[in-house]
Amino acid sequence: MSTNATSPGRSRPERRQPGQDWSSWPTYESAALGFRDHWYPVLWTEQVGKKPVAVTLLGENIALVREGEEIHALHDRCPHRGVPLSLGRRQFPGTVSCPYHGWTYDLKDGKLCGVLTDGPDSPIKGRVKVRTYPVRQRFGLVWVYIGDGDPHPLDDDLPEELRHNALVIGGRTDVRKGNWRFAAENGFDEGHAKYLHNTALWRLFKVMPAWNKTRVVERGEWLVRVQDEVHWEARMPGLGLWTNKRWWKRMPLPDAPGKAQKTNPVIKGLDLPGFVSIRMPGILRVAYPQFIHYEWYVPVDADNVRYVQLMVRFETGARAGLFKLKYLAAIRWLFHGQFTAQDAWMVDVMDAPPEKLYRPDLSLTAWRRKVEQSAPNVQPDKR
Amino acid sequence: MSTNATSPGRSRPERRQPGQDWSSWPTYESAALGFRDHWYPVLWTEQVGKKPVAVTLLGENIALVREGEEIHALHDRCPHRGVPLSLGRRQFPGTVSCPYHGWTYDLKDGKLCGVLTDGPDSPIKGRVKVRTYPVRQRFGLVWVYIGDGDPHPLDDDLPEELRHNALVIGGRTDVRKGNWRFAAENGFDEGHAKYLHNTALWRLFKVMPAWNKTRVVERGEWLVRVQDEVHWEARMPGLGLWTNKRWWKRMPLPDAPGKAQKTNPVIKGLDLPGFVSIRMPGILRVAYPQFIHYEWYVPVDADNVRYVQLMVRFETGARAGLFKLKYLAAIRWLFHGQFTAQDAWMVDVMDAPPEKLYRPDLSLTAWRRKVEQSAPNVQPDKR
Amino acid sequence: MSTNATSPGRSRPERRQPGQDWSSWPTYESAALGFRDHWYPVLWTEQVGKKPVAVTLLGENIALVREGEEIHALHDRCPHRGVPLSLGRRQFPGTVSCPYHGWTYDLKDGKLCGVLTDGPDSPIKGRVKVRTYPVRQRFGLVWVYIGDGDPHPLDDDLPEELRHNALVIGGRTDVRKGNWRFAAENGFDEGHAKYLHNTALWRLFKVMPAWNKTRVVERGEWLVRVQDEVHWEARMPGLGLWTNKRWWKRMPLPDAPGKAQKTNPVIKGLDLPGFVSIRMPGILRVAYPQFIHYEWYVPVDADNVRYVQLMVRFETGARAGLFKLKYLAAIRWLFHGQFTAQDAWMVDVMDAPPEKLYRPDLSLTAWRRKVEQSAPNVQPDKR
Repeated sequence: MSTNATSPGRSRPERRQPGQDWSSWPTYESAALGFRDHWYPVLWTEQVGKKPVAVTLLGENIALVREGEEIHALHDRCPHRGVPLSLGRRQFPGTVSCPYHGWTYDLKDGKLCGVLTDGPDSPIKGRVKVRTYPVRQRFGLVWVYIGDGDPHPLDDDLPEELRHNALVIGGRTDVRKGNWRFAAENGFDEGHAKYLHNTALWRLFKVMPAWNKTRVVERGEWLVRVQDEVHWEARMPGLGLWTNKRWWKRMPLPDAPGKAQKTNPVIKGLDLPGFVSIRMPGILRVAYPQFIHYEWYVPVDADNVRYVQLMVRFETGARAGLFKLKYLAAIRWLFHGQFTAQDAWMVDVMDAPPEKLYRPDLSLTAWRRKVEQSAPNVQPDKR
Repeated sequence: MSTNATSPGRSRPERRQPGQDWSSWPTYESAALGFRDHWYPVLWTEQVGKKPVAVTLLGENIALVREGEEIHALHDRCPHRGVPLSLGRRQFPGTVSCPYHGWTYDLKDGKLCGVLTDGPDSPIKGRVKVRTYPVRQRFGLVWVYIGDGDPHPLDDDLPEELRHNALVIGGRTDVRKGNWRFAAENGFDEGHAKYLHNTALWRLFKVMPAWNKTRVVERGEWLVRVQDEVHWEARMPGLGLWTNKRWWKRMPLPDAPGKAQKTNPVIKGLDLPGFVSIRMPGILRVAYPQFIHYEWYVPVDADNVRYVQLMVRFETGARAGLFKLKYLAAIRWLFHGQFTAQDAWMVDVMDAPPEKLYRPDLSLTAWRRKVEQSAPNVQPDKR
Repeated sequence: MSTNATSPGRSRPERRQPGQDWSSWPTYESAALGFRDHWYPVLWTEQVGKKPVAVTLLGENIALVREGEEIHALHDRCPHRGVPLSLGRRQFPGTVSCPYHGWTYDLKDGKLCGVLTDGPDSPIKGRVKVRTYPVRQRFGLVWVYIGDGDPHPLDDDLPEELRHNALVIGGRTDVRKGNWRFAAENGFDEGHAKYLHNTALWRLFKVMPAWNKTRVVERGEWLVRVQDEVHWEARMPGLGLWTNKRWWKRMPLPDAPGKAQKTNPVIKGLDLPGFVSIRMPGILRVAYPQFIHYEWYVPVDADNVRYVQLMVRFETGARAGLFKLKYLAAIRWLFHGQFTAQDAWMVDVMDAPPEKLYRPDLSLTAWRRKVEQSAPNVQPDKR
């Protein structure tokens, strides 16, 4: 039976085959642009200066501007004639001026505080306003809140272990092709690493399993993938031996079945039953023995995702410095570079639904159910 | 109040906010492709030779061909199989032949006067015709009439001072991004020059005002911007001093308020109460003390405009030659180049409606009203 | 009368002008993607190796893979998550594995025969299948059958003289712009060669006629163009002399009127009353005295055609080797290169309907009628 053929039941929705669409997860299906009422990491703070920078977030065009230590975010459209404010200049402190007619906006509240080409008594002054967005700086990143009303604390959208611990960070942010949901599903996907990444330089000296048996358990806001069985090789009937073992490769520790994952080695008190976890609005956590890798899948628009990768070690002083060096010399290129570029390739070429899910995809369906249950505020898609 | 937010009244048209659309100017709103029954400048005459040239004008594809001193314009589509005639050859004098099957059209009337691959007695000869367009040559430019019926004289579509005076011309024609209406509005826009162009090399040695108070008056076919007040600096409350004055810049003459603009210095008898004027179907006139700058906003299609700039001095002989030299050495690069490229930039990024107009925009609304009142023959948009 | 103007009768279909659309040939009009239930040539066999190759045929995405001497064709989409199988690897003999999760398909029947990342007992194994396509290798080309049910023999879709004779072949395959129907019509078009190709290097030493009188006759599956009159020059009233004669050009033989085309010189027993013939599903045959040139117009999608050109000489041994040399040294560049690139140019810029047909176009209408009468299985266009 080919799942590509149009199912005969397609015109009778009550008999629709599973996998033909995502109607089992209606909220998720409608969330091509992600979820409002969350904080999203966007750029490194040093990427934002006095000259405004244009970014797109959940389909909204935003101009980021620095004023001293503060970074401000405004809707990137002058209400006068629709010119992007990100093309503008900082004519006066604390403001940005549209390049066209010098309409000048207060960076703090977006109010039109001066209209250079209409004189000091311009009647429109104070009567126009561009939307502003709450901004925070944390871990060297600019975080923007997309939502209505007053934002909740940024901490609420951060993994708990990042909130109060001393740590050192290395990271990359890129805009990549593909919808954010494909990127998130790829991240929490149990199955692909063992095949897609078995050519990755990052795994050159470490074996990956051939296949696993997996459960997904809930831990607070997180879904955690727990491996009940890890198989390092498999004799495939009619095909031959399938394994990622090579004589020069070490067996890694954290995947070992039945092994001590009741407390994570990285952070005392962080109770992680498994290696990989995910939470709203699209944050992945991969707990290696020595460090944690995070991925934020930040929706740009329906066809692009901002992919923010952080590698965090909970150290200070010289050991933190050494980690930073190791990150810049190797991890950045091998893991945050070539390894996740393989993921980016798949996120780009993937095309679902229709889809035909298999046993390890319980991680995907658990994530979709989790999204449905959290009843998020879906960003409307105006296309 | 942000004008970007969807107005709550939007679903109830009777309470629609001003600026949400252009429904106050319904003719103008529908005129993305401009107006029929007018002459438009297209190319320099030396750009058209025996090999046909393809241009698009008000959405119509046209082939221009030279035959001796004459230039002819035909609809750029062979009725046989839709091949562009601009790809054709001049097989016989006074004709153009489609490159595919040698259907041969008389350049004068577009009649199929020979079908090379069907012999002298081809039954279809004389029974097919491609549309032709009236063409004139003037000021070194090719002018094409888009309209129905016999054209009115080209003079009717020319500024009156160009009709009979001796003059010398320098100019450029380019196709630029953006709709022709944005280009025209940018041209007659009272407000932007003082801010957008204050970095232009063309104004390196001349101060521009900080802001003006402006009226628009009608003079025959023209709307003229009249400056009631010209302010060279302004102290903007809460912001600081706004001025384009610099110690090395001269104050220009023609903008001086209350000053002698009853007769224009350029042409005796040209009664211009102001510096800048506009007329149908989209011609701008900027009267400098020594010369006049003109802009034609010729619609190409809904997203592109042919921008024809002319700089005219009413002189002959040696002084005309000197002006031509000055044009080629400086004006062409500083004014028709970098200065108006700033306008092109805005015309490209502008995105309205919605829009929120301010006091100086009375120049825009006067122009839109003028268009409505002139009840033009709108070119239909078949997309 | 211009056929470009919208006919007044257009809103009343019963009075529709001929040429406004292709509604006289409704099957043909709907066949932008060609016809199912036929064999199509796609690539040279040496272009397909162990690494899969992606091709598009009649709008269907297909992955071609070699396994030893065999070439296999699969629908180029893994049913799991929609990743193209042409990006995959040959992990085990006789299979292709999706690069994402290692879903492994048997090349022979498309069955999911192993799921590497789900272990030997994966429940989905054997329950998913990708569509496969019948493949043959002939004349050094890969032939793919697009159709339902068991395919008829490849021989049924080959010109009869190619089935059993000893022959030598030179050829090219390219994907070119334009719909396959324009390519086919261009091929069987009586009129254009005499004008479009009179600048071709291929005809540098041979005269082409000025115009012909032509009939189309049916010979089995083929339509054959028969020339009743061939005119080498014509005096066009009001224009002048039209001829392709030049003092250095020879007159060619096969076009000579009334001359011996009852048996073709190429193949004894091949009864060809004319020079050029066409058959379903879009195969052109041009019988030169020493060799036959064939063109297959293989639909890629609605806007692209795979153009397969073969030059065949019915010889063996040394004479075959000489012909192959001549092909590579000259014919490939002059005829299959520059000459047919002129056709490709027209196929790209052509835009019909509307169209206005002339006397020699009886070849086009005969072909369209032939298509209607053959009641083909039209490939549906899902756009």
